[in-house]
Amino acid sequence: PSTIRTKSRVFKIVTIPGDGIGVDITEAAVAVLQKLAVVSGTFEFEFTEKDWSSKKYQERGYYMPEDGLDQLKKFDAIYFGAVGWPVRIADLGPRTDVPDHISLWGLILPIRNALGQYVNVRPTRVLRGITSPLKDCGPGDLDWVIVRENSEGEYAGHGGTTHGAFSHAVATEVSIFTRVGIERIFRFAFETARSRPRKKLTMVTKSNAQRHGMVLWDKIFTEITKEYPDVETDKMLVDAMTVRMTLHPKTLDTIVATNLHADILSDLAAALSGSIGIAPSSNLDPMREFPSMFEPIHGSAPDIAGKGIANPIGAFWSAAEMVRWLGFTEAADGLMAAIENVTEAGIKTKDLAGASDTQTVTEAVCKEIEK
Amino acid sequence: PSTIRTKSRVFKIVTIPGDGIGVDITEAAVAVLQKLAVVSGTFEFEFTEKDWSSKKYQERGYYMPEDGLDQLKKFDAIYFGAVGWPVRIADLGPRTDVPDHISLWGLILPIRNALGQYVNVRPTRVLRGITSPLKDCGPGDLDWVIVRENSEGEYAGHGGTTHGAFSHAVATEVSIFTRVGIERIFRFAFETARSRPRKKLTMVTKSNAQRHGMVLWDKIFTEITKEYPDVETDKMLVDAMTVRMTLHPKTLDTIVATNLHADILSDLAAALSGSIGIAPSSNLDPMREFPSMFEPIHGSAPDIAGKGIANPIGAFWSAAEMVRWLGFTEAADGLMAAIENVTEAGIKTKDLAGASDTQTVTEAVCKEIEK
Ligand SMILES: CC(C)[C@H](C(=O)O)[C@@H](O)C(=O)O
Ligand SMILES: CC(C)[C@H](C(=O)O)[C@@H](O)C(=O)O
Repeated sequence: PSTIRTKSRVFKIVTIPGDGIGVDITEAAVAVLQKLAVVSGTFEFEFTEKDWSSKKYQERGYYMPEDGLDQLKKFDAIYFGAVGWPVRIADLGPRTDVPDHISLWGLILPIRNALGQYVNVRPTRVLRGITSPLKDCGPGDLDWVIVRENSEGEYAGHGGTTHGAFSHAVATEVSIFTRVGIERIFRFAFETARSRPRKKLTMVTKSNAQRHGMVLWDKIFTEITKEYPDVETDKMLVDAMTVRMTLHPKTLDTIVATNLHADILSDLAAALSGSIGIAPSSNLDPMREFPSMFEPIHGSAPDIAGKGIANPIGAFWSAAEMVRWLGFTEAADGLMAAIENVTEAGIKTKDLAGASDTQTVTEAVCKEIEK
Repeated sequence: PSTIRTKSRVFKIVTIPGDGIGVDITEAAVAVLQKLAVVSGTFEFEFTEKDWSSKKYQERGYYMPEDGLDQLKKFDAIYFGAVGWPVRIADLGPRTDVPDHISLWGLILPIRNALGQYVNVRPTRVLRGITSPLKDCGPGDLDWVIVRENSEGEYAGHGGTTHGAFSHAVATEVSIFTRVGIERIFRFAFETARSRPRKKLTMVTKSNAQRHGMVLWDKIFTEITKEYPDVETDKMLVDAMTVRMTLHPKTLDTIVATNLHADILSDLAAALSGSIGIAPSSNLDPMREFPSMFEPIHGSAPDIAGKGIANPIGAFWSAAEMVRWLGFTEAADGLMAAIENVTEAGIKTKDLAGASDTQTVTEAVCKEIEK
């Protein structure tokens, strides 16, 4: 042949669309990723889909097959939609007869745990063309990265229930915090803060009421802070943090918090930046031993499922973070620019006070990528 | 004498101003309560002050004396300012050598626990003349009561730390939920919802990730719901709840949540209604065996302590709730009207974008009470 083409690298991506709008937005994200690959010419994606979902759980009695986690390990990355419909995970009730990964807590949490994804990164900012519900809060006024501890704490799953339905029934939830777990999330958070212009890290706890794990967080934070003299730090209590996020968004940059605290704060962050529909998340294994997982932070939204009106921006942003994690910074930035050009042009779904459907937004983003 | 006066009832109130602005706002609240008593003519207050605080902790090594809790039991109500300065509670580190109530967790939590205050009621609304940080959110658009479980859950204090500073150090926080504890908070929440025009109760959990205590909440909620067919109910996950509060405030009315979840949500609620400085709380013993405790939800705010600029509205609103609890609904409503007349007249502190100091606001409220 007359032209010599550099062979592009092929990445194997497993998608788990899940339930409800998870299906719609995963389809949209795949389309955008394909387009991005073609335009870039330096990488390709080979997609494999798994039908693991609450819907299938209802039919089969399990989320993923026994070797599900091993299956995932063969891929370069996992793209996840949303889970929880027509059965709400919360309504299934606990089952103790089968291992976690094939039963109730069967999808997101076992993947995060088994694949070393101890960091959940949740960037939030007000994108061009998107309106924050806050007065006086435009692009640039709210630009945060929440670093969520993703492997322990309140999600350890320990505890139990005793005395069944009797009047002396007692249930416990045991949060578990380890030095290894705390140190590694702090280091990741400090590195993140250091990589950003403001070099500022806010650590969140509730150590005035939770006197063991949160006190250990405080203590280890003081230690690790010494390793990063170039990063400015401060500490907040989780309750007061919601106030600061709402009333003083400009004062924050990188934020590190426990599994539950960051779960709550990142949903709030998404709302403050305009809609839960735009927010991305990356479940990362910083050791790169296992595939990392990328998912929008919204849920399966049964009320709008299948109507073709779900906001795909959170899915696209998550896709951009996947591309970045795989090493293609320029392509990731290109996708983000394409997204913001589209939102700025007013091509937005209903949750953003727009009138476009999922497909229209998707096509517009694809067109921007081609430019 | 030529006139026969009905003898007014005398209530013994113990004040614990605590630290920082707790001192300023307690003084303001006492002035307003005295004025209210004089104008009403049907009740009187006899105030006793306790100097229990973080400041005193630093000098004496304890918050309250050994018989502190017993001392409190002799009063009709407790009025609490704020605690935590110059020592931050969180910075003291845990002490295991002395009982809780004379050491670290030494003030608010032991009082709530020992005096049967299993409910913490936190009303929030946008007062006249106060601006919400949210676009399109004026008086009437945000009118909630958060019913916080105040005796167990994440604040049970159980757990511990092992292996000290070594690399395998582990800390646990054990949340404890009991059927008795859950049933009674739900009943209180349903009664609260029933007493309000919309008769609507939203229950918050995180039962898709916390599989024991939160599942028990779900289960008991379903049971108790049957006792209140006239109350409309729905369930939210705590993360999604922050989104709903921020983007759809009108859809909420009465909210019930665990100790930690409601701690976080009530601070967010306060921020969304304009400032943490206006929000009140009532720690109630619904059995009326022990005195209940009233406190603004804000902290000791070291940065503005002693400057005379703290917002006393949260303190006044808490005082109004105390007066209501003692049986004087009309006087409580009168105080609330006085507060709103003052905020509507623009007499507000800096956190509400006003220019008045604590004293000016206090005098204005006193003058309104006299009208
Ligand atoms: C001081 C602290 C222990 C307390 C709590 O978390 O309950 C405070 O934040 C509150 O909300 O009353
Ligand atoms: C589905 C649920 C278990 C999950 C979580 O709480 O982690 C979700 O809310 C998220 O934030 O990814």
